[in-house]
Amino acid sequence: MTRIAFLPFALLAGASIAQTPAATDPVEADWHAIPDDQLLVIALGTGKRVVIRLAPAFAPAHVTNIRALARARWWDGTSVYRVQENWVAQWGDATEKKPLPAGITDQPAAEFEIAAFSPAVRMAKTDSYSTASGITADGWPVASNGTQAWLTHCYGMVGVARDASPSTGSGAELFTPIGQSARRLDRNYTVVGRIVEGIQYFAALPRSDAAMGVYASRAEDLPIVSVRLAGDLPAAERPRFQYRAADNPRFEGAVRARENPKAPTVALGGAAVCDVLPAVRRAP
Amino acid sequence: MTRIAFLPFALLAGASIAQTPAATDPVEADWHAIPDDQLLVIALGTGKRVVIRLAPAFAPAHVTNIRALARARWWDGTSVYRVQENWVAQWGDATEKKPLPAGITDQPAAEFEIAAFSPAVRMAKTDSYSTASGITADGWPVASNGTQAWLTHCYGMVGVARDASPSTGSGAELFTPIGQSARRLDRNYTVVGRIVEGIQYFAALPRSDAAMGVYASRAEDLPIVSVRLAGDLPAAERPRFQYRAADNPRFEGAVRARENPKAPTVALGGAAVCDVLPAVRRAP
Repeated sequence: MTRIAFLPFALLAGASIAQTPAATDPVEADWHAIPDDQLLVIALGTGKRVVIRLAPAFAPAHVTNIRALARARWWDGTSVYRVQENWVAQWGDATEKKPLPAGITDQPAAEFEIAAFSPAVRMAKTDSYSTASGITADGWPVASNGTQAWLTHCYGMVGVARDASPSTGSGAELFTPIGQSARRLDRNYTVVGRIVEGIQYFAALPRSDAAMGVYASRAEDLPIVSVRLAGDLPAAERPRFQYRAADNPRFEGAVRARENPKAPTVALGGAAVCDVLPAVRRAP
Repeated sequence: MTRIAFLPFALLAGASIAQTPAATDPVEADWHAIPDDQLLVIALGTGKRVVIRLAPAFAPAHVTNIRALARARWWDGTSVYRVQENWVAQWGDATEKKPLPAGITDQPAAEFEIAAFSPAVRMAKTDSYSTASGITADGWPVASNGTQAWLTHCYGMVGVARDASPSTGSGAELFTPIGQSARRLDRNYTVVGRIVEGIQYFAALPRSDAAMGVYASRAEDLPIVSVRLAGDLPAAERPRFQYRAADNPRFEGAVRARENPKAPTVALGGAAVCDVLPAVRRAP
C-alpha cells in the first residue's frame, strides 16, 4: 500500500519524464526564440527575478508604453503592493504620485480585442466565457464570441490595471491572476503578456486582508529593484527564452491528450484553454 | 488621473460595500449553520488554522474515514509536504510509514459521481469539462455530462490523493488546488470538501522545484500540529460557520450578475461554476 498518492501532472512542457520521446513531445524545431524586446525582466528585492513575455501584436500601444517605462527606469524603486487571495498580484507605483516619463501615452485606448480569431489549435469544447478558444501558432491563449477575439486572463497572464472605466490604464500598473483564472476580466482589461518565469514569487506572497487586497502599509510591499527589457541588460545577465510553437501535430496531440487522456483517467472530452498553455523554456 | 487602478472584485459574499443591501445580497435567512461534524480544523505549526467543510453527502465513505482519522489524532505531527506551483498543496504523512488507525477502510471505492445533478442555480453556459454545471442548494459546485454528476475541483476544494489507479486513496492524504481550478481531475479524484477559511496559508507556501512539487526534505514541510472535527474541540476553540444557501433569488441574482455584469463591464454571457462559489462565513 502506497499512501503518498500523487496527482497526475502531465506538463505540456519540453521535458518528458519518459526516456523515449512521446509523439506529443516537442522537437527542437518547435522551439522559437523570444526577441529581447519582448522580454521584460523584473528584479525583486528578494533577489529573485520574474520574466514576462510581452504581446506587442495584441496590445501594441500598451506594450510601447511598457517599453518606454522600462527604458526610463520608471519602475525602479516601485513595488508589488497588492496581493489578493485567489485573485491577483499587482505592482507599480503604490504612492500614485510618481509622474510618468516623457513619451508615455497616458490612458491609450483599451486594446481588448484582436483582429482575428485564428488559433493553431482549437479547443474541443466551448467554455463559460466564449464560444471558441485555442492557442495561436506563437503560443498565446485566445478566445472568441464569433465576431471578436481576445487574449484570455489565465493564471500568470499580465493585464493592465485601470480605474472603473475602460481606457484608463497606461501599463504602469500591471497585475497577474494568482488564483483561478480570471476569465471574467476577458475583453474588460488589456492583456499585455504572460509571466514565463518566476510567477511563484508573486503567487506565494502573503495575502492582504485589507480592501482590494492592497497591503495596508508600504512596509508590507515587495520592493521592485528594477524592470528592464532583456535587450537592455548586460549580455551576461540577459535571459534568453524560447516558446513552444503550437502549429504542429505534436502540440495538437498534447492538447487532444489533455482533453481525452488514456484510461484509467476518465476523459471529460474537453479542457480549458488556460489548462494547455504551451511551455516556455530557457534557451539551451 | 488615478493610476492605482483596481480590478473589480465583486465577491459573492455576505458583506456588501454598498450601504444599502443590493438585491443580490443574502438576507439572514440565507445563512445556515454547518454542523460541527462537517468542519475539520487543521492547526498549523505557524499558529494559523485552516478549516474545511466536509461533504459527507457526496463522499460518505471517505468522509467517514476522515472523521475516524481526526478522532484517532492520526494527522497530529504530520505535515504539508507538497506544494506544486499552479497545481496543488497536499498534506498527510510524508513518511508513508504511519499505520492507519483501526476502523479505517483502506482504499474504499472511489466516490467520483453523485446520484443526481440537481443544482439550485444552473450556469448559463456549458464549460470545457461538462455539459452543465451549477451550485447546489447547500452551496456545492457540481457538474454533469447528462448522465452523471460530480463535485468540481475548484480552487480550494479538497480532494483525496491516490496512486495512479482509482480507488487507491483512503482520505489520509488530501490535496487542494492552489492555482487555476484543477477541473481535469473531475470524476478522477474523490472530492471530500472545501476549504472555507485559511486557504491562503496553503496557497502562499513556497513552491517546490522537486519532482511533483514534493518538498525535497522534510525540513521544508509545514508542520501540522493537529486536525480535529470542530465538535471535538473545546467549546471555547470551536469555530462556528455558516454557508450561504443557493436556492433563493438573491443568490441566483448574484450568479446572473456575474454572468452579465452591468456596463461599462463587457458582459461575456457566462461564468464558470468555480467563479461563483457561495460565501461561507463565521457565525455572527
